[in-house]
Amino acid sequence: MKLLVTGTTGFIGNHLTEKLLKDGHTITALVRPTSSTESLSTKKIPHYIFDTDIVALTAFMQQEQFDGVIHLASLFLAQHKPEDIKNLVESNVFLGTALLEASTKSNNPWFINTGTFWQHYNNAEYSPVNLYAATKQAFQTIAQYYIETAGINFVTIQLNDTFGLNDTRSKVFNLWMKISKSQEPLDMSPGEQKMDINYIENVVDGFVHMTALLEKDTDKTLRGEVFAISAQERYSLKELANIFEKVTGAKLPINWGKKEYRLREVMEPWNKGKPIPGFTPKVTLEEGIKKTFNS
Amino acid sequence: MKLLVTGTTGFIGNHLTEKLLKDGHTITALVRPTSSTESLSTKKIPHYIFDTDIVALTAFMQQEQFDGVIHLASLFLAQHKPEDIKNLVESNVFLGTALLEASTKSNNPWFINTGTFWQHYNNAEYSPVNLYAATKQAFQTIAQYYIETAGINFVTIQLNDTFGLNDTRSKVFNLWMKISKSQEPLDMSPGEQKMDINYIENVVDGFVHMTALLEKDTDKTLRGEVFAISAQERYSLKELANIFEKVTGAKLPINWGKKEYRLREVMEPWNKGKPIPGFTPKVTLEEGIKKTFNS
Repeated sequence: MKLLVTGTTGFIGNHLTEKLLKDGHTITALVRPTSSTESLSTKKIPHYIFDTDIVALTAFMQQEQFDGVIHLASLFLAQHKPEDIKNLVESNVFLGTALLEASTKSNNPWFINTGTFWQHYNNAEYSPVNLYAATKQAFQTIAQYYIETAGINFVTIQLNDTFGLNDTRSKVFNLWMKISKSQEPLDMSPGEQKMDINYIENVVDGFVHMTALLEKDTDKTLRGEVFAISAQERYSLKELANIFEKVTGAKLPINWGKKEYRLREVMEPWNKGKPIPGFTPKVTLEEGIKKTFNS
Repeated sequence: MKLLVTGTTGFIGNHLTEKLLKDGHTITALVRPTSSTESLSTKKIPHYIFDTDIVALTAFMQQEQFDGVIHLASLFLAQHKPEDIKNLVESNVFLGTALLEASTKSNNPWFINTGTFWQHYNNAEYSPVNLYAATKQAFQTIAQYYIETAGINFVTIQLNDTFGLNDTRSKVFNLWMKISKSQEPLDMSPGEQKMDINYIENVVDGFVHMTALLEKDTDKTLRGEVFAISAQERYSLKELANIFEKVTGAKLPINWGKKEYRLREVMEPWNKGKPIPGFTPKVTLEEGIKKTFNS
C-alpha cells in the first residue's frame, strides 16, 4: 500500500511507520512547517509540508493517489492554558478537516483517525476529560459531514495509555524507571484509579489490522465506525506499580496518597469501546514491560 | 445589563444591538481586526478588537465584569471551497472557544451561542447540511467541556431563515423584490421545499427573552440547553411566493422547476427544536413582509 501518514515523528507514529515499512508499504509523511524531519530523512521517508494550503495538498494527493491516510498527528495536553487554545484547534480540528477535505477531493479511499478514551469521561457516550479530548471529538463532529456527503471510508481508533521503547513522553513508567534508579521518593495519588495501558506493538498491530480491514472493505461498511484499542487486563495504578517492580526487579520509592487525584481523574477508563473486528492484542503487560525496560 | 456581543455588524446583530440599546442595556462589541467598525461608531457602541490573544481578552472581561455574552458572529457559507476551511474553523470554532475560555476565566455568568437548523438535516439529532453547520456543531461539542467543568450558564439558540429591513444578504425575499421591479424571469427549483423563515423582530425578541431568562436563572438550570426559534407557520417556497405577491402586490416572474434542488436541499426544516420557554414570536409572516417591503 501507498500511505499518507501524519504524526510520524511522535511515539506511535514512529513505531507504526517502522512496522509499515518493514511490511513493504510505501509511506509519505505529512508534516507541518515547524516539524523536525531529521528522523524521516534517516528512515528515508519522503515528506510533504502542509502549511494551510488545502488546494495544493489536494493536487499533491491527486497526483500521488494514496491507498489510504493514517492521521495520528495531534496536540496532546492533559491540561491547557488559554494560550494553547489556538494550537489545540489548529492541530486537532483544522489539520484533520483540511486533510479530510483533500482526501475526499482526491478520492482517497479510506482514512484512519485517532481519538482518545478521554472523550468518554465516566463512560459517557461523550464527556470530555479535558479540552484536548473535546477538540478530538470536535473533529469527529466535523468528519460526520464528510462521512455523510463523500464516499470516503472514515474510521476512528480511540486509544488510551501506551508505552514502549523510545518513548520520550513523561509517562508514568518512564518516571518510575527514573526513580527506581535514583531512589528519590515520589509523591503520588492514592493510586486506586484503574489504568488501561497498552504496549506499543499491540497498538501498532491494531492500526495495521485496521488498514487490512479497510483495504478489503470496498463496500465501505466500516464508514463512520469508532473502534477502541484496549488493554487485555486493567490494574489500578498501585497494582501496576507492583507488576512493574516484579517484572523489572526495581524498587519504587512511592509515597502513595501524598498527592490528590487530578481534577476529573479517570478512575475507570472507558469500557464501552468497540474492539477492532478480528483483532486481539498479543503482547501481555508483563511482556511489554520486559521488552521495554529489561534491555 | 452590561453585555459583550459578537457579530454586531451582521444582520441579526445589527437589529439585536439596536433593541438592546433601546431597552437601556450597555453593549460592548467584540470585533475582529478585519471588521469594519463604522456602524458601531455611528451607534456609539464601544468595541474590543480580538485578534487571538485570549489572555488579553480574559483580562479585559475581568475588568469589565459583563453580565453576559451573546455570541452571534459566524462565517456563513451554504457551500464551501477548500480555501474557506481555515476561516470556517477560525470563525466558527476557534473564536467561540476563545470567548468561552475567557468568559469562564472571568466568571462571566452566562453565554448565548447561536446555531442553525442545518445541524439537523432530515430532522436528525445531528446531521450537518453543510460544512458550515458541522463547524457550528463542533463548537457545541467543545462547549460541552466548559459546560461540564465551569460554572457558566451556556445555552444555544438555533435559527433558520430570517428576513427584515436592511438585510444585505442575498436571500430569497430580496431576490424576489428585485425581479418584481425588473420583471426579469428567474429560474427556480420546483419549490416544494418547506420554508421556516422568521421576521427579524421575532428573532430579536427571542434573544431578548433568553437574556431575561438567564438573568433570573441563578441556579443555572438552563446550562447546556439548546433552543430553537421557529416560524409560527411553514409554507413551501411556492406558497411563500404567493404570499409575497399577495402582501406586496408584486408580480413574480418565476419559472418553477427550471432549476434542480440543491444537493442536500432541506425539504422539511428541523421540527424537533425546543422553543424558548415562555416565548412566542409576535409578528406574523404577512406583517413581517409588509413591514419590510411596503415602505
